[in-house]
Amino acid sequence: MRRHIQIDGAHLSLRLNKLAAVGAIPGGGACRLALTAADKAGRDLVVEWMHELGLAVATDSVGNVIATREGTAGGPPVMTGSHIDTVATGGRYDGCLGVLAGLEVIAALNEAAVVTKRPLAVAFFTNEEGCRFHPDMFGSLVYAGGLPINRALATVTVDGATVAEELGRIGYAGSAPATKQPPHAYIELHIEQGPILHAENIRIGAVESVQGISWTEFTLTGQANHAGTTPMRMRHDAGYVAAEIAVFARRLARDIGGAQVATVGALTLSPNLPNVVAGTAVLTVDLRNTDNTQLQDAENRLFAFAAETAAAEGVAITQRSLVRFDPVIFAPDLVARVEAIAREAGLSVKRLPSGAGHDAQMLAAICPACMIFVPSVNGISHNVQEYTAPEDLEAGANILLRLMLELAG
Amino acid sequence: MRRHIQIDGAHLSLRLNKLAAVGAIPGGGACRLALTAADKAGRDLVVEWMHELGLAVATDSVGNVIATREGTAGGPPVMTGSHIDTVATGGRYDGCLGVLAGLEVIAALNEAAVVTKRPLAVAFFTNEEGCRFHPDMFGSLVYAGGLPINRALATVTVDGATVAEELGRIGYAGSAPATKQPPHAYIELHIEQGPILHAENIRIGAVESVQGISWTEFTLTGQANHAGTTPMRMRHDAGYVAAEIAVFARRLARDIGGAQVATVGALTLSPNLPNVVAGTAVLTVDLRNTDNTQLQDAENRLFAFAAETAAAEGVAITQRSLVRFDPVIFAPDLVARVEAIAREAGLSVKRLPSGAGHDAQMLAAICPACMIFVPSVNGISHNVQEYTAPEDLEAGANILLRLMLELAG
Repeated sequence: MRRHIQIDGAHLSLRLNKLAAVGAIPGGGACRLALTAADKAGRDLVVEWMHELGLAVATDSVGNVIATREGTAGGPPVMTGSHIDTVATGGRYDGCLGVLAGLEVIAALNEAAVVTKRPLAVAFFTNEEGCRFHPDMFGSLVYAGGLPINRALATVTVDGATVAEELGRIGYAGSAPATKQPPHAYIELHIEQGPILHAENIRIGAVESVQGISWTEFTLTGQANHAGTTPMRMRHDAGYVAAEIAVFARRLARDIGGAQVATVGALTLSPNLPNVVAGTAVLTVDLRNTDNTQLQDAENRLFAFAAETAAAEGVAITQRSLVRFDPVIFAPDLVARVEAIAREAGLSVKRLPSGAGHDAQMLAAICPACMIFVPSVNGISHNVQEYTAPEDLEAGANILLRLMLELAG
Repeated sequence: MRRHIQIDGAHLSLRLNKLAAVGAIPGGGACRLALTAADKAGRDLVVEWMHELGLAVATDSVGNVIATREGTAGGPPVMTGSHIDTVATGGRYDGCLGVLAGLEVIAALNEAAVVTKRPLAVAFFTNEEGCRFHPDMFGSLVYAGGLPINRALATVTVDGATVAEELGRIGYAGSAPATKQPPHAYIELHIEQGPILHAENIRIGAVESVQGISWTEFTLTGQANHAGTTPMRMRHDAGYVAAEIAVFARRLARDIGGAQVATVGALTLSPNLPNVVAGTAVLTVDLRNTDNTQLQDAENRLFAFAAETAAAEGVAITQRSLVRFDPVIFAPDLVARVEAIAREAGLSVKRLPSGAGHDAQMLAAICPACMIFVPSVNGISHNVQEYTAPEDLEAGANILLRLMLELAG
């Protein structure tokens, strides 16, 4: 009988549209930065839906909302979820899909009057995007015990208020303890936010891992000089050293190959005038790999090259780590089940790493966890043009439904 | 007898200090952007000195001020001069030295009651710096016939007013025609604004030429993408192409050698975030050489490299020329005289090109012209720390005096 339980894809799209209308921005996207009035309105809507589905809704002290459906045997729930906060130029699917697909799973089970042995839970975590305050994946980090609640609540937002104040202001300073008993398992459905599935025309991604992330900021201090009167041999050109580092980062990714990526996305010269040799340059290098040994190797080679190149130019260099997350490996048996369930459903499937961070990587520290990806058209995300076809949303939600049912018994 | 006529170095320094007090900024510099109230005040002071020296002062229709001392034989004058406008962070010497040294030449001749055959003239030209309106060397360009007066007067400043309006406002819209009969010769004393004389401990520079200047702005349009989820092979990274161009510019200068310099001083990425592959990059490449064939070669190699590298990355590229001046070669006999007079005076002297632009290069189009450089400590200019030792100012002014006397007979 359970084989025939299906997600109502049209209803999933309807909910995505209704949520996208909260904080709507031109072009079809939404802006609901964490703990703003728009975020509150989005939360209120989703909580209303949770109540309509008969779920027990609890808000914890960092504002994570967890809605539980009882099971016959009790114990820790099989949890799904994601986030509903967005970046300033957010699309309709990033995060929201995982939460609203979870609600459709509950709706489908309610409709079929199926009660599982283990409880089921649908969560949305606070500030996954990290736009108003750091770090990103904030709520799930606290949930998994990676950030003490007192430090979390004292965190100051870009607007100067603390997280505690902002939670109070929007009415989401809950009473449940923020660090919970681990779930039985955690499965998160998400759009890929990358181009691979769409480019290869594959319906389902079985996410094996999350890339480790290393962000290093280099500050180069040379000497601003006249571009005409300063002979090349007498230059201490911070901009030239920055450019060499950016070119080296590309070479590093090519040399290491595999999952290694390297990006210089931010680079600022000063005084940034055509006829003045740059006196200072600040740049970031973003390195990611699913293999921590390779990631460390990339870091070491980058740091050595930067130091040597700066020294040769007579440019002072300082560096600081902005972000450093080790890679996360998802539970292999869950990844294998995602793959198998997709095959059984006649859907093309590919194992791949996640290049972006997700709440699932925090939950992986406390329970078996995995992720299901559906294609992002042209890999576009954090953009109002973010798009996933309705049939892909539905297919991904059906994989989620099947796997949650298996795990909940 | 003339051999004993000498510049009053103390008086030259005094005038430099008095002029620097007009529009003074912290640290000992001055801000007298062209055609502002501060520029007017500086002009008024210098014009007052010109009158005190008994000179006939004429202001032309583009605001150039030319003060003439009659000669016994008449005819076109032996002219010296420079500019008294400054950049926003101007020092005390750039431009002002050439004008005030010219006044000290007149003062020394008045003192010695020497009357030359040819007339002598001391000029200051409008807007040499080009900060409030383009191009730089504005007044001398008009004077030399390189920019029609009507176009010059219609030029709009960064504040929105036209040059004609600003000249009227400060009372320097003169009645003399802006395009004059060519002088007999033009000699300009200037600080080097570069490090060579100071580094090599040489007192006098005999300036052979002004480097040709080529500024190209490249706009690179790739695709902004997630730094984690976008495989290297699928990137169209405008920032990477910009970095390759900046590294190539350095290689180009090294390969061509000699006087060739190459600078990427301005580079802006968008969206300029650590975790987003740059969608667009705008950068300038400043190429300079005293040899126009080499400069053209450098341009051609740069343009070809930029086009190939952008194409290989799947990044669209457009380019536009912001500035293109051919090199200027100063009158060889005048350069030789500067060198010889310095040697006779027991001063170390070196032939060198000018890396910066100067009014003299405009005058070189209509008469024999040359420049005399004195050292800039550490090559610092366009900065309140700009400094030349008083004995070097005096030595340079004495070379100017000797050469003007020779030429004026």
